[in-house]
Amino acid sequence: MDAILPLEVPSDEDVLSTYGIEACEGGVCAAEGIKAAGVCANLRGDPTRRDLALVSADDTCVCAGVFTQNRFCAAPVQVSKERAATGRARAVVLNSGNANASTGAPGVEVAKQVARLVATELGCAEEEVLVASTGVIGVPLALDGFVAGVPTAARALAHSTKAAHDAARAVMTTDTVPKESSFAFQVPAGDGGVATVHVGGFVKGSGMIQPNMATMLCVLSTDCAIAPEAAQAALSEAANQTFNKVTVDSDTSTNDTCVLLASGAANNELVEKGTDAYLAFAAAIRAVCEELARKIAADGEGATKLVTVDVLGAATDKDADTVARSIANSPLVKTAIFGHDANWGRVAAAAGKCGVDFDQYGVDIDLLGVPVLRKGLPVPMDEDDMLRRFEGPEVRIAIDLGVGDAHARVWTCDLTYEYVTINGDYRT
Amino acid sequence: MDAILPLEVPSDEDVLSTYGIEACEGGVCAAEGIKAAGVCANLRGDPTRRDLALVSADDTCVCAGVFTQNRFCAAPVQVSKERAATGRARAVVLNSGNANASTGAPGVEVAKQVARLVATELGCAEEEVLVASTGVIGVPLALDGFVAGVPTAARALAHSTKAAHDAARAVMTTDTVPKESSFAFQVPAGDGGVATVHVGGFVKGSGMIQPNMATMLCVLSTDCAIAPEAAQAALSEAANQTFNKVTVDSDTSTNDTCVLLASGAANNELVEKGTDAYLAFAAAIRAVCEELARKIAADGEGATKLVTVDVLGAATDKDADTVARSIANSPLVKTAIFGHDANWGRVAAAAGKCGVDFDQYGVDIDLLGVPVLRKGLPVPMDEDDMLRRFEGPEVRIAIDLGVGDAHARVWTCDLTYEYVTINGDYRT
Repeated sequence: MDAILPLEVPSDEDVLSTYGIEACEGGVCAAEGIKAAGVCANLRGDPTRRDLALVSADDTCVCAGVFTQNRFCAAPVQVSKERAATGRARAVVLNSGNANASTGAPGVEVAKQVARLVATELGCAEEEVLVASTGVIGVPLALDGFVAGVPTAARALAHSTKAAHDAARAVMTTDTVPKESSFAFQVPAGDGGVATVHVGGFVKGSGMIQPNMATMLCVLSTDCAIAPEAAQAALSEAANQTFNKVTVDSDTSTNDTCVLLASGAANNELVEKGTDAYLAFAAAIRAVCEELARKIAADGEGATKLVTVDVLGAATDKDADTVARSIANSPLVKTAIFGHDANWGRVAAAAGKCGVDFDQYGVDIDLLGVPVLRKGLPVPMDEDDMLRRFEGPEVRIAIDLGVGDAHARVWTCDLTYEYVTINGDYRT
Repeated sequence: MDAILPLEVPSDEDVLSTYGIEACEGGVCAAEGIKAAGVCANLRGDPTRRDLALVSADDTCVCAGVFTQNRFCAAPVQVSKERAATGRARAVVLNSGNANASTGAPGVEVAKQVARLVATELGCAEEEVLVASTGVIGVPLALDGFVAGVPTAARALAHSTKAAHDAARAVMTTDTVPKESSFAFQVPAGDGGVATVHVGGFVKGSGMIQPNMATMLCVLSTDCAIAPEAAQAALSEAANQTFNKVTVDSDTSTNDTCVLLASGAANNELVEKGTDAYLAFAAAIRAVCEELARKIAADGEGATKLVTVDVLGAATDKDADTVARSIANSPLVKTAIFGHDANWGRVAAAAGKCGVDFDQYGVDIDLLGVPVLRKGLPVPMDEDDMLRRFEGPEVRIAIDLGVGDAHARVWTCDLTYEYVTINGDYRT
């Protein structure tokens, strides 16, 4: 009996090879014209821990951004959203330890003051500086640490793999590993030759910060010369297909922020929408975002497994997404995976409960590449073989609803004792 | 500062006192003309455990039912749904140990054969017997145990509190306690006097059954003489406001079944929709369902707390329900409660993430009756007082969105290590 999907779906790699997109070193500093720093500003009462990150272009450049859609929206998001909408920026400053959320008008003023400190150091307009924060909410963010920390960060700015890594570390909270990615590809240069373009970045996100809520902060950069609308379109589409498809615990933060700085230092022909170069750029930024998204899911709070859920055969993209999220957010599915239990019944129940229409006798399910349900009826399985397959770091679930042609993929992780420990620790 | 809601909302009690509805003894046998039994049929490999329940009216009577909306729908549900739609029935037979789900056409045949065994014992038409099952899915249900078990159950049928209790025990799976409720009130009798009417029942449900999925099975009975349409309307409305507002882990089973038998033995004037007697009946059945629903939530798998979430000030009932479920299903909220953490930030984030429109600076939140957020900004709280309040068995969350007048209430429980143990145990 054939599996619904091969364990490794080849289509993503096909896209990369089509455009000659290859992984490279450097993270957020892979792109020329981009510098980064991550320093200790003692913002969280631990002078040995990096807690302030700065990413800066050498000059004012193109920028794009996507932000949380939570109705509770933190002060830095309010500030950065407006500034990113101009399509121009110079730098992004990020802190961990305090989310500057539910802090009202004073919180917005502090966020602007932090940006002002950075602008003074870089010699740019304060409106060209974006801000992002992650940490406790409802506690005023003190400016004190930034007064000394921002100049330290500005002095530390460097175009190096290490500097990129320091910045990625400075935004970590319950993350157990820094998360970086970078890819390179070639596009036509302005002089008729070929230019090498880099896209890279880092992200933080694994769940939430004691004692508050989940946050994803992501800074991406590229040296591609690209029109602001094209940059925004590629970023929005990539975020939608990657970060917005990750669900560790179905909770969306007040502070989620993903920004892109495009320095233009690759000296390629300006990339506009509707060109081959745009398609290559969009594929590269998606590759970076997908690698970072998978790293978020794999580093989900308490996770022991990365879980990829593919829904095929849905009537619409929306139906496919609804079913995929219903499975990925099911505590019963997530605990079964933690327990190495090939429990297709929970997958079926999660698919059936979410209001999407299908015939139970038209449904196929694979777990870990093994057919376990065909046309709504169970397929005998080799339990020992399944247990061996569960030893790997990734669990794939595929379900074909047998209705149409739409497909969706989401990433999540298992639900473990450690998740309860991280999020249920007594506050006092 | 005033709390949004008093800790005990008086409106429910007001309704009960309006109609003189009072708790009484007897569970599903509170109603005259109803007998019950719960026996060991060795359906789950444990000859000491009750696993077969039977509830029977003395004669064919009015019935009503509500069933799972999961697209994966078990064989007994397929059979019972059709039979309940006739508005007439004699008995309900229930088993634990095997859900007879994902078993195809043979499963439907077994469900009908079980009903036939009961019909033979009771001397009624097999179409008058409803069936319900809970347990593992995808495993054929063997008729063997029923061949001896059904006659044993029929012989054990009795109109007694103990018999009702035995039946409630026979459907338990991961339930830690049997769950029963019964209320009585008075309505006009056919002879111009007053008749006492009873409504009672039992339910099972706490999450899922190792190694499969969540199921709620409920049998209700009354001696009220009531028209079938009125019985169905009252049951549907009550289920919608109670059982459908319980969310232990957001998972809906393939087997959920709730049926009502109305014997008419109270000899009251026939209750039709649109009468005062109907309103009293509807209030009583809702009281039974609400008590059972709260018992399900409190006995959620691994639960240490019953959690009641009230959303006020929403624009529509649907918005209120969406926000209430978003809060009740949030793993971050549920683990915070387990950790006795008065974490209003997670409540706010859960409210804000679900796509319902409101202004964050119009929101009030109470935890355990204490104001913690007003107009989107935190209210200083006494952490010691909060920790003391967390010692109780119930946690109340109230949020006022400040938009309109709609209200919704849902019940859930906390998310604990024990939940992971119950659902994540290795299968082999």
